[in-house]
Amino acid sequence: MYNLALLGAGRIGQIHANSVSLNPDCHLKYVVDMNETVAHDTAKKFSSQVASVDEVLNDPDIHAVLICTITSTHADLIERSAKAGKAIFCEKPVDLSIERVNACLQVVEETGVPLMMGFNRRFDPNFAHLKSVLDSGEIGDIELVTISSRDPQAPPASYIESSGGMFRDMTIHDFDVARWLLAEEPISLYATASALTSDHVKTSGDVDTAIITLTCASGKMAVITNSRRASYGYDQRVEVHASGGMLTVNNVSESTLSIATEKGMMSQKPMAFFLERYAAAYRQELEVFIDGLITGVENYPVGEDGRKALLMANAACESIATGKVIELSL
Amino acid sequence: MYNLALLGAGRIGQIHANSVSLNPDCHLKYVVDMNETVAHDTAKKFSSQVASVDEVLNDPDIHAVLICTITSTHADLIERSAKAGKAIFCEKPVDLSIERVNACLQVVEETGVPLMMGFNRRFDPNFAHLKSVLDSGEIGDIELVTISSRDPQAPPASYIESSGGMFRDMTIHDFDVARWLLAEEPISLYATASALTSDHVKTSGDVDTAIITLTCASGKMAVITNSRRASYGYDQRVEVHASGGMLTVNNVSESTLSIATEKGMMSQKPMAFFLERYAAAYRQELEVFIDGLITGVENYPVGEDGRKALLMANAACESIATGKVIELSL
Amino acid sequence: MYNLALLGAGRIGQIHANSVSLNPDCHLKYVVDMNETVAHDTAKKFSSQVASVDEVLNDPDIHAVLICTITSTHADLIERSAKAGKAIFCEKPVDLSIERVNACLQVVEETGVPLMMGFNRRFDPNFAHLKSVLDSGEIGDIELVTISSRDPQAPPASYIESSGGMFRDMTIHDFDVARWLLAEEPISLYATASALTSDHVKTSGDVDTAIITLTCASGKMAVITNSRRASYGYDQRVEVHASGGMLTVNNVSESTLSIATEKGMMSQKPMAFFLERYAAAYRQELEVFIDGLITGVENYPVGEDGRKALLMANAACESIATGKVIELSL
Amino acid sequence: MYNLALLGAGRIGQIHANSVSLNPDCHLKYVVDMNETVAHDTAKKFSSQVASVDEVLNDPDIHAVLICTITSTHADLIERSAKAGKAIFCEKPVDLSIERVNACLQVVEETGVPLMMGFNRRFDPNFAHLKSVLDSGEIGDIELVTISSRDPQAPPASYIESSGGMFRDMTIHDFDVARWLLAEEPISLYATASALTSDHVKTSGDVDTAIITLTCASGKMAVITNSRRASYGYDQRVEVHASGGMLTVNNVSESTLSIATEKGMMSQKPMAFFLERYAAAYRQELEVFIDGLITGVENYPVGEDGRKALLMANAACESIATGKVIELSL
Repeated sequence: MYNLALLGAGRIGQIHANSVSLNPDCHLKYVVDMNETVAHDTAKKFSSQVASVDEVLNDPDIHAVLICTITSTHADLIERSAKAGKAIFCEKPVDLSIERVNACLQVVEETGVPLMMGFNRRFDPNFAHLKSVLDSGEIGDIELVTISSRDPQAPPASYIESSGGMFRDMTIHDFDVARWLLAEEPISLYATASALTSDHVKTSGDVDTAIITLTCASGKMAVITNSRRASYGYDQRVEVHASGGMLTVNNVSESTLSIATEKGMMSQKPMAFFLERYAAAYRQELEVFIDGLITGVENYPVGEDGRKALLMANAACESIATGKVIELSL
Repeated sequence: MYNLALLGAGRIGQIHANSVSLNPDCHLKYVVDMNETVAHDTAKKFSSQVASVDEVLNDPDIHAVLICTITSTHADLIERSAKAGKAIFCEKPVDLSIERVNACLQVVEETGVPLMMGFNRRFDPNFAHLKSVLDSGEIGDIELVTISSRDPQAPPASYIESSGGMFRDMTIHDFDVARWLLAEEPISLYATASALTSDHVKTSGDVDTAIITLTCASGKMAVITNSRRASYGYDQRVEVHASGGMLTVNNVSESTLSIATEKGMMSQKPMAFFLERYAAAYRQELEVFIDGLITGVENYPVGEDGRKALLMANAACESIATGKVIELSL
Repeated sequence: MYNLALLGAGRIGQIHANSVSLNPDCHLKYVVDMNETVAHDTAKKFSSQVASVDEVLNDPDIHAVLICTITSTHADLIERSAKAGKAIFCEKPVDLSIERVNACLQVVEETGVPLMMGFNRRFDPNFAHLKSVLDSGEIGDIELVTISSRDPQAPPASYIESSGGMFRDMTIHDFDVARWLLAEEPISLYATASALTSDHVKTSGDVDTAIITLTCASGKMAVITNSRRASYGYDQRVEVHASGGMLTVNNVSESTLSIATEKGMMSQKPMAFFLERYAAAYRQELEVFIDGLITGVENYPVGEDGRKALLMANAACESIATGKVIELSL
Repeated sequence: MYNLALLGAGRIGQIHANSVSLNPDCHLKYVVDMNETVAHDTAKKFSSQVASVDEVLNDPDIHAVLICTITSTHADLIERSAKAGKAIFCEKPVDLSIERVNACLQVVEETGVPLMMGFNRRFDPNFAHLKSVLDSGEIGDIELVTISSRDPQAPPASYIESSGGMFRDMTIHDFDVARWLLAEEPISLYATASALTSDHVKTSGDVDTAIITLTCASGKMAVITNSRRASYGYDQRVEVHASGGMLTVNNVSESTLSIATEKGMMSQKPMAFFLERYAAAYRQELEVFIDGLITGVENYPVGEDGRKALLMANAACESIATGKVIELSL
C-alpha cells in the first residue's frame, strides 16, 4: 500500500484525490489546504487526515505528494518534497521563471526523487491512441503536426494577471503535446498573436488568439492554433500528416445524438471544458504516476519536459514582442 | 450516330433530353409533347424537330424512344413503339394494372425490342458503389438490407389520386432497390402503414408512413421504412448487414460546410429532392441505355423488373388491407 | 446511509457492487454468491461481509437487494425479498415463463416493495439525451422508430440453450426501448427471423437475425433489426422519425482517432460490447435506483415493464412459428 | 450570342471549352493549339474552327479569349488580347516574374478590358457556401483562418523545374483563398518549409511541405499547411474561427459509402485531384466570367488578385531563404 498526500485541495486536487481513492494499491493519507473547511471536508471524503506540509514531509510512511497548489508555491514545495525524499506529482508549471525552474530541477536531480509533471493530455485516450499508431510506424514518418487548442472562453482578468500570459498558461500544454508527437526537439519558433476576444484580455496586455509554428532540424514541423474563446466549446484536436497518411483526433461530443430538422443536421458540441474532456486523462495520469511508484519506471513527462515547454512559451512571448523568429535550444 | 425521340417533355423528359444531348453518339431527333409551346421550346434547345408519335414511329432512322409521358399512356406507347421496332426507355411504371402490364410485356417480348425501365436509383453512384462492393464478395453474404426512403413532403391531393397510392408511386423504387441488392426474390411481404403527415393524404385513402418487411427463402431479409414527409429533406439511405460487415450509403449533403456555434455543430441537409440527389443517376442511366443500343447488352432493369416491383406494391396494399403477411411469387 | 446486498457476484454483479461503492449514501453490506472464493474476494474489495440469502433478508438494516444471479433464480429471490420488505433491483428477466412472472409480480404488488428491472439502455446517456429531446416536444410527434441492435458475436450453444431464445434474451432490451420511446403500447407485432450466423444457432433451434415490426393504435410504428453477429462490433443505434425531424443516436466509438491512408478514411469501431458501451448506463441505473430508495420516486422500469417486454418476446416467437402477425394486449 | 476563343487546348483548356459549350449564350468559335491534331479534334468536338492567335484577335466577332497555354506565354497573350480589345480569362499565373506581371497589368489597365484570373477555388460550391455564411455576418468577425491544401503526389522533376517552385505553383491558390476569406490584406508573412516527400523535389531545390502564417493589421490571422504528397488523396479543407463560431469545409468524398468491418469503419477518400474536386468550380467560374461579359459586372478575381498572390508567393520564398518574417505591402 502506498501512502500519498494531497497538497492543495482545489478543483484539480479533488480530481487527483478521487483517482487515488480508486486505486486499490494507494491510500490518500493526508490532505493539506490553507482553507480549513476544504481540508476537513476533503479529508473526510477520502478517509484521510488533515495535516500541514511539515507533517506530511516528516512522515516516513508517505511515499509521494501531489502538488496541486497555486503556481507560485510549486517550486518551493517541489524542493522541500524532494529533500524529504518523496516522489512528486506536480501540476504544471514548475514556476513561471525559468531561473527558478532551473534551480528547482537541480534540487530534484540531486535528490533523485521522481518528479512527474501534470501534462494530462498525453494521457487522453484519443491522443494516446494516435501516439500509439505513430509509434507503431504504420503511418510512416511524421511531417507536419497541427494542434487546435481553444478554450470555451477567456478567463477573468484576475486569473490572466497571475497566469504568466496565454503562452505560459494555456499553450504550454500544446507545446508539450507538440514535443511529444514530433519526437524531435524544435529548433525554431515563430508566433503571431492578437487580443480579439474581449477587452479585458487586451487591457491586461495578454493575447487570446495565436498561431505558433515550430520547425525541427529534420524538416518536420508543427503548427498550433489557439483561441481563448470558442463559442462552440472546448476545442482540442490534433492532426498528424505523415508519409503514409494522416491521423486525426477529433473532439469528444457530449453525446452521439444528432437532430435533423429543416434547419440542418445538428450534432452535439464538444465536451464543455477540460474537466469533462480530460476526465479519463486525469484518471490515467495518476495511474501512470502510481505505476511509477510501484515499478520504478517513469513513463511520464518529467521536470525537464516542464522546463522545455516553458522555454517554448518564453520564446513565443519573445517572438510576439520582437516580431521575429526565435531560435530554440532545448 | 443513334437517333432518339423524346415522348413527353416534362420535368423528367427535359433531364433525359439533356443527357442525350451530352452523348456524342446520339442525336435527339424528335420531341413529342401535347403542349405545343413546350414541344417547340424543347426541340429548339436540343436542335430537334417537333413531331407526332406516328411520325416518330414511322421514321426508320429512329433507333429508340424515351417514354416520359404520364403513367396512363405508358403501356400503349410501349406497345406501339415495340411494334415499330424501336428500343424503349420508359419511366416507371409500365402501368398501375398488373393485367395491363402483363399484356404489354407480352407484346414487348414478341417483338424482341429492348425495354429499359427507369429505376434510376440503381445508377446513383453511391448505391452503385455499394452494389459493386457487395458483388465483389469482400463483405461476405448479405443477411439484412435496410432501406430508408423518405420524401421531403407529401404530394398534393391531385397527384395522390392518380398515383396508385404510395406503394405503387414511391415505394416501387424501394422494392426495386431491395430486389437488386438482395439478389434473390423475396417470398413474403408484410407492410404496416399510417397516414400521419397531413389530412389530405388520409382523406384520399392513401398512407404516408410505412414499414415493409421482405423475407427470402434463404433467410435473407429486407426492411423498407417510408415517409412522405421528412422535414430535413430527401432522405435516401441504404444499409446492408452482411456476414463480413456492414455497408452504408448515407445521404449526399448540399455542401460539406459545417457550422459550429454555441447551439451545436450544424452540417448541411441532404440534397433537396430527387432531381438534385439523383442528377448523376439520371445521366448514368441514359448512358447505360445508350450503351445498350450500341453493344446490344442490356445491363439494366427491364420490363420484368417493373412488373415484379408492381407485384410487390400490390402485395403491400393487400397486406395493409388485410393486416396479414402476403406470399409473393416473383 | 442505505445498506444493500448483492445477490450474485458475477460479471454484472461486480459492476453494480462497484456502482454502490461509489455512491456516498450507500454501503454494500453483504455479498452472496454460491462460489465461496468469489463471494469472499468481492466482499473484501467492497468492505462487505459474505452472507447467505437468509441472513440478508433477515437483517432489518438491509434496505435493498440487487439480484444478479442466474435467470432461473430471479422469481424466487424477488418473492422472498419482497416478502422480507426489501426494495429490489433485478436484472432482466423476471422469468422466462409468463405465468411465473405474473405470479411473482402479484407478490411484489401485494408487498408494495419497489422493484426496478435492469433495462440499462434507458440510462445510456445518448439514448437518454434522445428521449429528453423527444419529451421536450421540440421535434414534434413520433412517427417511426428504428432500433438497430446487434451483438458482436453469437453466444455459445450452452448459453443459447438456457437463454429462452434470442427474442427473450437479447431483443427483450429492444422491446423495452421501443415501448419507452413510442410512449404508447403497440397493438400488433410481426417478426421474421433466420439462423444465418453460425451452425450452432441453427442446431439449437434459435434464430440470430431478425426484423420485428410494431404498430400502435395511433399509427405510430417501430422496427427492430437484430443480429447476433456484427463483425464491426456492438451495434446499438436508434433513429426516431418525427413530424418535426429525425433524431439519431449513433454508436460510441472506441476513440475519436481517424486514420487516412491510400486505402481510405478509417475511423474507430463501436465500443466492443455491453460492458463498455453501457458502462455509464450501468452507473446511472444504480444511481436512479438508489435515488428511488431515498426519495420514494420510482423513476425507472418496473416489473410491469419486464412483463410486457416478455409478452412481446413471446409474441415474436409466435410470429416466427406461425408466419403470422400477432395481436398484442399490453 | 457571345463568341469565345480557346488559346491552348490542353487538359484545363478542354474543361473550359466544355463549359462554354454548355452555356446557351456562348459559342466557342475558335480553338488555337500548337499541336494540330489536338486543335482539330477539339474544334470538331465543339463545332469550332482551328485558328491562329492572330486570326482570333483580328476577328471583330470574338468577344473573349480563354488563355490556357503554358505559363510563359500568358503575359504576352494577355497584352495582345487586351490591345485587341478582347475580354480575357487567364489561368494563373500572369507570369512568374513580378516585373513582367506589373507591366502586363499596366497594359490591361490602359486598354480597360476585363481580365479574370482562374482562381477556381473561389467558385467551389463548398468554399462559396462558407464565404456566403461569413459575408452574412451570422458567425461574427473572422479571427483565424486555417487552410489545409495538399496534393496527392509531388509532380515530376520536369514540371517542378518550370513551375516557379511550390509557393508560386501550388500555394498561390491558397494565398488567394486566404486573401478572399480574410477580406483584409495581410501585412506580414512567415514560412517554414522542407523537402520531405521525394528526392527529386529536394534535388530540384524546391520544397514540398510548408506552413505559412499570415497576419493582418487588425489582428486577424491565417495559416496555410501544404504538402505535395497526401497518400489519402487531394486534401482541400478550410476552417474559419470567428467570434461567433467556426466554419469548416471538409473534403468531398468519392462516394457516401462506408464499410464497417472488424478492421474499423472505412469511409471513402477525398476526390482524387483537382479535376474531380473542382469540376463544379470550373463550370461555375466560366459561368461567372460569361455573366461578366453579359452584365459588365466583374464579380471575380482580377489581374490585381493574381499580382498580390504572386507577391505573397515571392515573400514566402524570401522567408524560406532568410529564415525571417517578411513584411507585405499588398
